[in-house]
Order: sequence, then structure tokens, then C-alpha cells
Amino acid sequence: MTGTDPTDAEHAEKKARIKAARDRMMADKTQTKGLLIVHTGKGKGKSSSAFGMVMRCLGHGMRVGIVQFIKGAWETGEARFLARFPDEVTIKTMGEGFTWETQDRARDVAAAERAWTAASAMLADHNFAMVVLDELNVVLRYDYLPLATILAGLAGRPAGQHVVVTGRNAPAALIDAADLVTEMTLVKHPFRDGIKAQPGVEF
Amino acid sequence: MTGTDPTDAEHAEKKARIKAARDRMMADKTQTKGLLIVHTGKGKGKSSSAFGMVMRCLGHGMRVGIVQFIKGAWETGEARFLARFPDEVTIKTMGEGFTWETQDRARDVAAAERAWTAASAMLADHNFAMVVLDELNVVLRYDYLPLATILAGLAGRPAGQHVVVTGRNAPAALIDAADLVTEMTLVKHPFRDGIKAQPGVEF
Repeated sequence: MTGTDPTDAEHAEKKARIKAARDRMMADKTQTKGLLIVHTGKGKGKSSSAFGMVMRCLGHGMRVGIVQFIKGAWETGEARFLARFPDEVTIKTMGEGFTWETQDRARDVAAAERAWTAASAMLADHNFAMVVLDELNVVLRYDYLPLATILAGLAGRPAGQHVVVTGRNAPAALIDAADLVTEMTLVKHPFRDGIKAQPGVEF
Repeated sequence: MTGTDPTDAEHAEKKARIKAARDRMMADKTQTKGLLIVHTGKGKGKSSSAFGMVMRCLGHGMRVGIVQFIKGAWETGEARFLARFPDEVTIKTMGEGFTWETQDRARDVAAAERAWTAASAMLADHNFAMVVLDELNVVLRYDYLPLATILAGLAGRPAGQHVVVTGRNAPAALIDAADLVTEMTLVKHPFRDGIKAQPGVEF
């Protein structure tokens, strides 16, 4: 393959058209604002993608707050890693175990309310450039917290603050309020083939 | 809401059933192996989810190799952050700009080949617990590298090594070979509303 192949010339021309279209598109994008981001769906990557954004923020020297609404049964690698950055990352792990591990709704509701109190404080503090509300969707799905309260808290945050809400079954009203919504769709999962959860991948 | 509501008793019973089913399911999952993980689709979170897994690995003291097949036009927050961990993370940024920014196929192919050489070395080194091949799917989509070579390289890696391949349009043969595939589906995107890419979120 050389630079003079006809296919290469076509390729270059097509790429030039794409680049020109993209440059025009980007020239229109002039606003910045704090985004409300939702990661939902049955697939993997909802929380880890939020943690990837946390890493981006840290790379830019931005402060991040994280509330884990549902605490995993296992200690996570992220939590252990982020604990190395106490000045940059504030983590509140408020949940009392996955919902399917608990059998006491009143206790779940109380834990959710404590988590929301922690989240509200972050959403009122402009020093947090990003707030991650991990698994909040699951809490909302079980009606552990009133949706209207959450939407009001999100709407009242500082103008430049980004929020990432994760978890399956994001409520429609939250999706309506969001700026950026990604659904993670499960295509193939190793649990189906007898592979257990492993460090670095699942936790 | 109190612990004696009939709905609470029903809730507890339902949760107990779910927990028992989950415990049975998890008891069957006994194998560990290096997973081939693919993040594809038009939605966001493909790379950031991979970076979240990198964070998990770092939390477990695992070494990680990353090859960026397509270098972004902007410097990323992740790259800046991960540069703080030179002993734990090896990053090779090999691409010469997004494909739509270049207009020279031969140059793109040469860059892809250099990136694959770096990736191959990581895939032959059991010291890397995880290897991230960021945007490899895009390179494959443009036929910059022969798919058979890539599949053979992936198949020949150390048994315990995890690999994460990201990018739109993952080839069917790669999906067939993968253990875990997630498609990120775009539900809503702020670029459509005139909001530009912002630090911490997009880069």
C-alpha cells in the first residue's frame, strides 16, 4: 500500500470531508455547563465509567465527591485506590450492602436517607467539580428516597458542577432532566460461563 | 414506614428469595481466567470504563499496560493522572491523531503497526495483569491491521491476563472471541444541545 494508490486518494478525500464536517460541528459548541450524566442499563461499566471520569478530573486537578449508595459485599479496588487521594477525593460509603443482601426495608430507607444527606452537602458545595452518586438509580427504583427531592437537589447545585448518577433502571424523570445518558447493554457476560468475579475487573 | 408493615414483611421475604437464588448462582462460579473484554457501541464510557478498571487494578497492586491506538487531539486527564504511576502503569500513545484528522492512509497504517508492536510486547508479558487496547476497534474498522494477527496475539497471551479492547464497531470475530462484551448506547448527548466538550467529562 503506497501513498499514490487511488484508494488512498479516495480515503484522503473522504477523511477531509469528515474533518470539515466535524470542524463545523465543533465550532457551534461554545457553551460550558455542569452536566447531569446518567449511566444506566443492565450491562457492565456504569460505575467503572464514572470512576474513569473521576480519574480525568484528578488529572485536571478538580475535586471530586463520591457517595456510594449501595455498598458492595466485597471491598472495591477503586475505593482502596482513591483512598490514596484524601485531599482530592471525598468518598462516603453509606449503603448497608446490596439490597438483595438485606431484608429490612426500614433499615435500607434509613441508610438511603443518610446517603442523600451526604450527597446534598456535596451538591451544595461548589468546591466539588464533580459528584458521583453511585447506584442512586437502584435506591430510586426501590422508592427508598422521594424522586422529587433528588431532582430538586440536582437542579439546585452550582452551575458548573458535573454529576454522574449510576445504576440500573434510571427513572424516566431523571433521564428527562439529564444532559448525557448512556445505556450500558449486556452483550455477553462471563458469569454465564461459570467464571467468577475477579479482582481488577469486577471489584 | 416501620418494620412491622405488611409491605415490609413481603419485601423481606422477596429479598430473602432473591438472596438465596443469588447465593446458589454464585456458588457455581468457581473458575478464574484472564478475560477478553470488549467495550463498543456509539455511546460514551467505552474508554472511561476501561480506565475505571485500571483504577481497580491499581487498587489491587496489579500492573497495567495501555496502548492508545488513536491519540486524541486534546491531552487527556487520564494520561496526565496515570503518568503519576510510572511503576504501575505503562502507557504507549501511538496514534497520530483521530482518523478523521489525518488524510494519509499509509501513515495511519504505519502508526497502527507500531502500536500493535507495543501491544504485542505487553500481551507476551505476564507481569501485566491487564492490558488496555484503547480504540483498537476503530483501527480494525479501517482495516489498518489484519484481524487474524490481532486475534492470534490475543489468544496467545498469558492465561491470567485481562485485556480490554475499546472503540466503536467491534468486529464480529472479536465479539465471538470475547468473554465479556458491553455495548454503550447513546441515549442523550449534550453536543446536540450546543454544549462543548469539557475537562473531567470528555477529556
